[in-house]
Amino acid sequence: MAAFRLGTAVEGKFQGNGGVVPSPRHLAVPKPPARNRDEATNGGTLGLAGLQPKLFPAGKPRRRTRVPLWQAAVFASVALNVALLLHHCVVNNPAASPPHHQQLHACLVQPDDANSGSGKGRAMPEEAMSKSRAPSTGKPGVTPDSVINLDHGDPTMFEAFWRETGDAAEIVIPGWQTMSYFSDVTNVCWFLEPGFDHEVRRLHRLIGNAAVDGYHVLVGTGSTQLFMAALYALSPAGADEPMSVVSTAPYYSSYPAVTDFLQSGLFRWAGDANSFKGDTYIELVCSPNNPDGSIREAVLASETGKAVHDLAYYWPQYTPVTKRADHDIMLFTVSKSTGHAGTRIGWALVKDRGIAKKMTKFIELNTIGVSKDSQLRAAKVLRAVSDGYELPEVRETHRLFDFGRRKMVERWNMLREAAAASGIFSLPEETSGYCNFTKEMASTTPAFAWLRCDREDVEDCASFLRSHKILIRSGSQFGADPRYVRVSMLDRDDAYDIFVKRLSSLK
Amino acid sequence: MAAFRLGTAVEGKFQGNGGVVPSPRHLAVPKPPARNRDEATNGGTLGLAGLQPKLFPAGKPRRRTRVPLWQAAVFASVALNVALLLHHCVVNNPAASPPHHQQLHACLVQPDDANSGSGKGRAMPEEAMSKSRAPSTGKPGVTPDSVINLDHGDPTMFEAFWRETGDAAEIVIPGWQTMSYFSDVTNVCWFLEPGFDHEVRRLHRLIGNAAVDGYHVLVGTGSTQLFMAALYALSPAGADEPMSVVSTAPYYSSYPAVTDFLQSGLFRWAGDANSFKGDTYIELVCSPNNPDGSIREAVLASETGKAVHDLAYYWPQYTPVTKRADHDIMLFTVSKSTGHAGTRIGWALVKDRGIAKKMTKFIELNTIGVSKDSQLRAAKVLRAVSDGYELPEVRETHRLFDFGRRKMVERWNMLREAAAASGIFSLPEETSGYCNFTKEMASTTPAFAWLRCDREDVEDCASFLRSHKILIRSGSQFGADPRYVRVSMLDRDDAYDIFVKRLSSLK
Repeated sequence: MAAFRLGTAVEGKFQGNGGVVPSPRHLAVPKPPARNRDEATNGGTLGLAGLQPKLFPAGKPRRRTRVPLWQAAVFASVALNVALLLHHCVVNNPAASPPHHQQLHACLVQPDDANSGSGKGRAMPEEAMSKSRAPSTGKPGVTPDSVINLDHGDPTMFEAFWRETGDAAEIVIPGWQTMSYFSDVTNVCWFLEPGFDHEVRRLHRLIGNAAVDGYHVLVGTGSTQLFMAALYALSPAGADEPMSVVSTAPYYSSYPAVTDFLQSGLFRWAGDANSFKGDTYIELVCSPNNPDGSIREAVLASETGKAVHDLAYYWPQYTPVTKRADHDIMLFTVSKSTGHAGTRIGWALVKDRGIAKKMTKFIELNTIGVSKDSQLRAAKVLRAVSDGYELPEVRETHRLFDFGRRKMVERWNMLREAAAASGIFSLPEETSGYCNFTKEMASTTPAFAWLRCDREDVEDCASFLRSHKILIRSGSQFGADPRYVRVSMLDRDDAYDIFVKRLSSLK
Repeated sequence: MAAFRLGTAVEGKFQGNGGVVPSPRHLAVPKPPARNRDEATNGGTLGLAGLQPKLFPAGKPRRRTRVPLWQAAVFASVALNVALLLHHCVVNNPAASPPHHQQLHACLVQPDDANSGSGKGRAMPEEAMSKSRAPSTGKPGVTPDSVINLDHGDPTMFEAFWRETGDAAEIVIPGWQTMSYFSDVTNVCWFLEPGFDHEVRRLHRLIGNAAVDGYHVLVGTGSTQLFMAALYALSPAGADEPMSVVSTAPYYSSYPAVTDFLQSGLFRWAGDANSFKGDTYIELVCSPNNPDGSIREAVLASETGKAVHDLAYYWPQYTPVTKRADHDIMLFTVSKSTGHAGTRIGWALVKDRGIAKKMTKFIELNTIGVSKDSQLRAAKVLRAVSDGYELPEVRETHRLFDFGRRKMVERWNMLREAAAASGIFSLPEETSGYCNFTKEMASTTPAFAWLRCDREDVEDCASFLRSHKILIRSGSQFGADPRYVRVSMLDRDDAYDIFVKRLSSLK
């Protein structure tokens, strides 16, 4: 602990404990048959240009010839009808890029479908274009020569899906709403919005990936805050030594960094679970695992040891859902389930009431609760996901996990082709299983690729790729061999396409 | 440090260091003349009942007598016009409680004022009433016999103002927006929404309470997270001892709790600044001070010491703005400036780039950024506040600080009357100064009342009041005499009214 250098965490270059672990089973990738991508890309920036609605197109000038009164009345009345219909239609179609006649057609087909547009979409573009600054869109757009940054698991791949769902996931928050610190003073987690609690339980029941009956739902500012809350809750205050926190390598690079950055006297990072000696510990079990996608269970078993299960990636787009998890503490996040990383909402399912209270206390002391705006938004998003499967009138294109699975299969096929074409990279073996949610066999298509550079003269794969303008995270940050790197599979199509093309050209 | 008991923080009963400080100048309150409250109360719950719009009132049945074709055409066309106008009008008037003829009247007066309603308000009540759970409203409503909880500074007083501003502060977030972790990769604070940055600077320039030129704006999950970030940034990693964190008593009860709950090796609570010996420290300067409202400056002065200025209450509703603050690190929050505590947004103004980077790193490790939804909302809210003073067409009732000042003056008058009527309580002396923002003299009307129980047999004022079903925070939690208590002045009218009435009856 004394040797811990805060500067490493501060500069974002935390190197884990530098240990080298045996590589998981890696296969040279056979060259598959060439295939075409049959799905349109949706990359590029998310600027609001072109979204400003065009109100009231100029009508024909009124004729000045003399007409009977009733004819004039009918004409004027019909003209007013048309104008109102047009206006109504424009207002109710936020995606105002099609020309007017297309909008009118769409409008006349469903003139009063209050759910199809509802007029809410109008305000944003107007405001964004005039008085206020446009909301951010994340990393800048890319060109074939750009530096491609796949270091973070930024899940912008999902934007294309949410653009398609119209306003099913749109939220309106009046200025006076949810101003209080409190959401439900009768709940252990007093800042948890009841609607979010409801939609979390509903989604888990639908997917079957985690038990919710008998569990407390806690909300956090992303699952990272809940991870810290769990460490706090599981570490007794009066102990002689800080609690040891361990995980099997390769482990998520944030685990050591987040555990140690405040040099807490309650807990400290103790490295790879496989080499840990002792009975008192917190074991972090990430499954499917970040970075290598493997399905994991706890490797330590002691009566005084505790486990925290990080199930951020246990969703049907990444892995077959093979059983309903029912661990003591399970962590999830919208970042990886629906792609809403900017919303910073995670949740924990916690069995024990005392632990749930202590985790809540951590969040109270750390941030006095969690953004209600984001909780309301996350509830709306999760509800749209469940509605996509449970409501008969919702179109198939509005099924998130179908979209996610299709994209991930496509991207993994592209990546395996590129690795084979290059000849110097290998990837974890593809495995498959029966998914209880989709009721069919499915392969694992992890959110990260754990890529190994097999060229003998390359000892640091991240540096090698950086020299080719590809930024990804080195295996050394995950307690593993620097011949490995972690590649985000969730970026926008344009960045991912350039990455794959560039990778395939490396020899 | 070894004697620190985590359990106290866990159970929310942190008692500070138990020190007793000299009381600030307290005066027996003279009995002022009786006065009437001339402002309607706005308490009660925020239920959405009654907001559901009524679409398409039943029209007259069509007559079956034979009419000429043109007459029928005119009638049908006019009827359609009326129906469309009615529909348009209902959609564009979220406050749908008035009967239809009133809506129609309002609509015909301003048929195309896109800014007056915009239709966005419709979706929430419909959804709230049918498919989804209604958003939370905070603590439950109160009756004259209720327990009144003024322990927290829950700023629900401001709801009445934001209900009046219509949709100036309403926000619409489409499902696909701000999904990325990143907001601006070129900014030190890479998760800061540019629109929020812009509105923060604009508001400070308007009010004149803090310098912004040459400062970095950082966003946090409330100012509490930024407080921790500042401790982290100002505490060197390689030091032999944790950095001492001090503040002049009475100090905000969260300072010791938040500093020590993780038993960090980087910093630790060292109590009252006035009794601190040493040159290396972080001094927390809260001004106006929580809990007692006093205007403060740093009491320690050493070249190696650092100060963090918590200016959460340095706004015109609480105190005259007498100078433009320009300290190295200044903390603010929407909780106390606009009343949006549930949004969990605070900001820091930081001079030094290196410190700004380290504070950003803390938030990256703690929560990987800050909710973009809440940043967008906070930007909209701050913009509405500035617009209220800068745009000529905005009505005077939409000026937040006028509302806040009026309410606070009224509440402080009520409280001083109640204390005088009771005869057993005293309050800090009222002071006043020239406000550079309002250009007139103004008294201090703090967000908390630092109330002293003068009855000789009452040594613990909080217990005494608890026995009368008033929950407030004991002076002992602020490093002060338990004869003092801190009372929130920012609750809803109904709760505050009952509190004042009950207080005046105590003998």
